[in-house]
Amino acid sequence: MKKSEVVVIGGSAAGLTSAITARRHYPDKKITVIRKEEKAVIPCGIPYIFGTLGSPEKNIMGDDAYKKNKIELLIDEVLEIDRKAKKVALKSGEEIEYEKLIIATGSLPMMPPIPGFEKENVFPVYKSLPHLSKMLEVLKKSKRLVIIGGGFIGVEFADECKKIEGLEVSIVEILPHCLQIAFDPEFCEEAEKILEERGIKLCTGEKVVSIDGLKNVEWVKLESGRLLEADVVIIGIGAVPNVELAKKAGLRLGPTGAIVVDRFMRTSDENIFACGDCAEKVSFFGGRPSALRLASIATAEARIAGANLYGNKREYIGTIGVFSTFIGDTAFAVAGLTEENAKRQGYDVITGTFEAPNRHPGAMPGMRPIKVKLIFERRTGALLGGIFMGDKAVGELVNAISACIHYRMTIDDIASFQMGTHPALTASPVVYPLVNAAEMALLQAKK
Amino acid sequence: MKKSEVVVIGGSAAGLTSAITARRHYPDKKITVIRKEEKAVIPCGIPYIFGTLGSPEKNIMGDDAYKKNKIELLIDEVLEIDRKAKKVALKSGEEIEYEKLIIATGSLPMMPPIPGFEKENVFPVYKSLPHLSKMLEVLKKSKRLVIIGGGFIGVEFADECKKIEGLEVSIVEILPHCLQIAFDPEFCEEAEKILEERGIKLCTGEKVVSIDGLKNVEWVKLESGRLLEADVVIIGIGAVPNVELAKKAGLRLGPTGAIVVDRFMRTSDENIFACGDCAEKVSFFGGRPSALRLASIATAEARIAGANLYGNKREYIGTIGVFSTFIGDTAFAVAGLTEENAKRQGYDVITGTFEAPNRHPGAMPGMRPIKVKLIFERRTGALLGGIFMGDKAVGELVNAISACIHYRMTIDDIASFQMGTHPALTASPVVYPLVNAAEMALLQAKK
Repeated sequence: MKKSEVVVIGGSAAGLTSAITARRHYPDKKITVIRKEEKAVIPCGIPYIFGTLGSPEKNIMGDDAYKKNKIELLIDEVLEIDRKAKKVALKSGEEIEYEKLIIATGSLPMMPPIPGFEKENVFPVYKSLPHLSKMLEVLKKSKRLVIIGGGFIGVEFADECKKIEGLEVSIVEILPHCLQIAFDPEFCEEAEKILEERGIKLCTGEKVVSIDGLKNVEWVKLESGRLLEADVVIIGIGAVPNVELAKKAGLRLGPTGAIVVDRFMRTSDENIFACGDCAEKVSFFGGRPSALRLASIATAEARIAGANLYGNKREYIGTIGVFSTFIGDTAFAVAGLTEENAKRQGYDVITGTFEAPNRHPGAMPGMRPIKVKLIFERRTGALLGGIFMGDKAVGELVNAISACIHYRMTIDDIASFQMGTHPALTASPVVYPLVNAAEMALLQAKK
Repeated sequence: MKKSEVVVIGGSAAGLTSAITARRHYPDKKITVIRKEEKAVIPCGIPYIFGTLGSPEKNIMGDDAYKKNKIELLIDEVLEIDRKAKKVALKSGEEIEYEKLIIATGSLPMMPPIPGFEKENVFPVYKSLPHLSKMLEVLKKSKRLVIIGGGFIGVEFADECKKIEGLEVSIVEILPHCLQIAFDPEFCEEAEKILEERGIKLCTGEKVVSIDGLKNVEWVKLESGRLLEADVVIIGIGAVPNVELAKKAGLRLGPTGAIVVDRFMRTSDENIFACGDCAEKVSFFGGRPSALRLASIATAEARIAGANLYGNKREYIGTIGVFSTFIGDTAFAVAGLTEENAKRQGYDVITGTFEAPNRHPGAMPGMRPIKVKLIFERRTGALLGGIFMGDKAVGELVNAISACIHYRMTIDDIASFQMGTHPALTASPVVYPLVNAAEMALLQAKK
């Protein structure tokens, strides 16, 4: 029987990153990644296949990292984990003995509990190259696309698919706003405005009751009675952890249906770690179960799992939740809790919002406004979250706030934050929106 | 006699920001800013007047903020501070009584101790509109510009003035590299490569001994004997605090020649605060005197001074030092200590460097590499500094590191940092350079 001291199941963001981390921390161990897919798709890049990239082949995670980090890559499928014998059985018939196992089996698209999603041309978003190639082929021939779900996946798909010539695009979202779980309403409205300006039809506050048609989908029926004509449907309502193997192996599962892990990313079996979408998460705020599933969370967990295989080195602080997206030509980003989410969790909050040009003077090229909203706990002034809208640099600015949340920076800390500024790169130091939003929150606190 | 509870001397970044902050914290006080200049120039924007902007009028700080924040703006000059009577005497003959005074008189260009800088067409960089208009006029008619000093001012001036048609541009820098005080050599070399590719002549490791010519400058003489022909010279070797008024008023001055302040930004007179380039600074690292003078430091200090006028609310943590610049089409940024500066201060350091595309997949538009170097204290793993090179978003990414330095994040903290990533905005979470640079430092530590 083959032996590899470290075996990783799954070769997407979490699997690959945990293997690379294990290699860095344990240079002498044999490390094997078992991946089902011939080619690994970059998960966050999937919507961009359908517009900006134009081809699924352009959204492939190269396999160079395996060679470079001396990690063996097996294209195969694990059928069973034998915890007692510490081995995995593969579809090819092979068995591999392990000392430490990392489960990074990711997630599967959530399917809505409605009739008709088995019709032709109804696509959940699988991270599979053949599936995505098929989707692209169908989309290119279609006239009317209905996207079920107005979260990040839905909105990014809509924005990109709208670039396919002659394709009408609609989004059906059950909540009053698109992106409502991620952003506060004033930001959702800005995003919706951009989508509508791009000609995307939004059906918010609407529930899909069925997907209908003879063989192919022909329309989507909403609870309000409205019928949306459709020759193609994309389902983007979320993801569920892919835990079949773990369940069969008797590993403990948690409240969101994912594999229970401690803060060292160990499962209920001390020789088995889990990370990424298949691993249960707790919120940084209050420690409750968190259903956030993002590649960036997956890789952070993977760097903890990979380092801790033979001894605890890193501890997870809980999921802060840092997202960004790009709609039309505007970046939106959020870290931590929105005002609505914070209130829902029982916080007494104060907020501050500030908008300023992202260049100084305003005559510098590329000038556009950048808007920041910060959310603080009222009594202690501790930062709970930040929401951003503006140019592409917002994608990195939000990461500054992630660090500030981690260390529970207060309003006054942020008001006197030492940022760097430059005419061609950032807002002026006088109106720098981050620090000014903190001052705005102070003003609100006084009222 | 006129009375204003709060009087601010100076209307540049520090003066304006301290007044706005005072207004926010003390809504009922009368606040007056006394500014010498009819129009306030945006200090960091000055180099951009000569290329990108094309006119000094496009680099003016508007005065709207005064009206909006109910701050009185007097265009006048303070001649004397009478600490006993708590009043200032103005050039116009007026006197104003104050309860709290903020000195934000900024800095003046440092003049090199060499003969000839009084020749015609030799320009120090004064933050004055008429002076800058004169400079632009002369530069437009000139054929050969020599810039003395290869720091941020010198390099930005060179990059911008090169956009003036037909102008040859040379930089003379006494140190082996341009930008050497701010960056480690490998980054300086990258910057120098870009400058040279743009046709800028670099004379590094060269000292100017005289500026010669009949009436107008005709050449610059270097210690090596080289003569650089020049019909215009810009002096950009740094700034000295403008403390004449404070000195005359008997306020204590510090080791860099600036006004001594405590961590509440109070001078040796408890009713007088100072902030910005005229205020003495201590380093966040070890508390030694710091000669860094930046608009972003000035505004951070101003937000502390303005809030503390009638009671201590905020305390300065010392100057971290966060810079960014933009050369050719590449952003460079640094926060905290470079490797060389850290060693010079007595730290035993380990560093990690990582380069990755700033988009994922690499086929996304706007893709270019982003390079990160992190500097850690060896024993504790505490972050001391970070250096960045890449696209414009680097200007905000460096601010994430500023927060991480503030909280003395360790290598392992950064390796498991929770950042947000997005195909169109950032590097992939797998190769995200910040966290991977931390892992590289760990590998170095093991050696």
